[in-house]
Amino acid sequence: MDPVKIIEIKKSVFEDNDADAGRLRKELKEKGVYLLNLMSSPGSGKTTTLIRTLNLLKDNLRIAVMEADIDSDVDAVKIKEATGIPSIQLHTGGMCHLDAEMTRQGLAGVEMDNLDLVVLENVGNLVCPAEFDTGACRNAMILSVPEGHDKPLKYPLMFSVCDVVVINKIDVLPYFDFDLDKCKEYIHMRNPKAQVIPICAKTGEGVEAFAQWILEEVKNWKQH
Amino acid sequence: MDPVKIIEIKKSVFEDNDADAGRLRKELKEKGVYLLNLMSSPGSGKTTTLIRTLNLLKDNLRIAVMEADIDSDVDAVKIKEATGIPSIQLHTGGMCHLDAEMTRQGLAGVEMDNLDLVVLENVGNLVCPAEFDTGACRNAMILSVPEGHDKPLKYPLMFSVCDVVVINKIDVLPYFDFDLDKCKEYIHMRNPKAQVIPICAKTGEGVEAFAQWILEEVKNWKQH
Repeated sequence: MDPVKIIEIKKSVFEDNDADAGRLRKELKEKGVYLLNLMSSPGSGKTTTLIRTLNLLKDNLRIAVMEADIDSDVDAVKIKEATGIPSIQLHTGGMCHLDAEMTRQGLAGVEMDNLDLVVLENVGNLVCPAEFDTGACRNAMILSVPEGHDKPLKYPLMFSVCDVVVINKIDVLPYFDFDLDKCKEYIHMRNPKAQVIPICAKTGEGVEAFAQWILEEVKNWKQH
Repeated sequence: MDPVKIIEIKKSVFEDNDADAGRLRKELKEKGVYLLNLMSSPGSGKTTTLIRTLNLLKDNLRIAVMEADIDSDVDAVKIKEATGIPSIQLHTGGMCHLDAEMTRQGLAGVEMDNLDLVVLENVGNLVCPAEFDTGACRNAMILSVPEGHDKPLKYPLMFSVCDVVVINKIDVLPYFDFDLDKCKEYIHMRNPKAQVIPICAKTGEGVEAFAQWILEEVKNWKQH
């Protein structure tokens, strides 16, 4: 069969956000606060993963969470109730991503001077959040098994900007055509240095490794 | 526990696209072509659902498919191979949505005069595509069981602009905390008239109902 026709549709231009993100990162460094930007599709289990992970970290780190969501405070309430960690909700008014200035507005709502780690749970979206540097020290993402192992082929930018990819819902691997080795291969096509951490947020399996990764990151950020 | 803090982050302004979408819909009406805009999260099974559905419709309707994707032609190739239906890929250059002008650029690549139905598979994203009228006659969306039944609470606009919500991957209902009745209730909070059609695209279960909905829609569009 012939190859399919491809039509190039032009992209809108958006403002440059990189300089501002660099400034925010410098401010975080001076304060010794590590900001982690956590991204994923809707329904990949970001909030459940965060609850499990933060419960492992909260005795060692002073933490706050910023939840970006469209029109509810469901996630921030859940996290606060399940971990006791201060959580704020960022209402983005339907925006599909956060940039550095929006992240800074959020940070004004947490007490940065008394924190080691702030986690930003970005809007559930594999496209736009990847295009905007939030000023975070690192980007992490969660890919869940039901979404399929081909996602790094279809959302290349997201996978190239992330330093760690958590693969969630491994408990349902038997029920989906998800090839973990192929997924790792595709992830490394986009970012050869990305760490891949398979977990099940529901049962807690593998979450320790993600918590350990964050702990090391925060230590390094404060020391160097 | 106290309610969580909410910070309102301002939204960027985007150009008005509604008039253009209205013009496109009028053109489609004059040509007797029905355009369906199909939206969902990444990995919800849009392409597999389309293949199943179009195979049921292709003897009754003259169909073309436009695939909007980020950086590959995987989906268009799959659809063309599995159905024989002409499929084109729209490269959006990383854009997170399609507006009416972008849709029009796509339609220039299919032979509208010989068609009854064009399906636009929008970018996998529950946020931005809902904000832009593509000029389609109707919006449909697919929500898959692993994403969770709370999605209408978290992505209200998407569910309010859709006339039909296909709930895919019902074969894995036993393995997820997904409450179908609650999901229907939440969908109807956003859009009381939305049709809800549970299916399993993998096995074909329920797909007949979605095909029937499309067939009726196309007939009505041509008659009135």
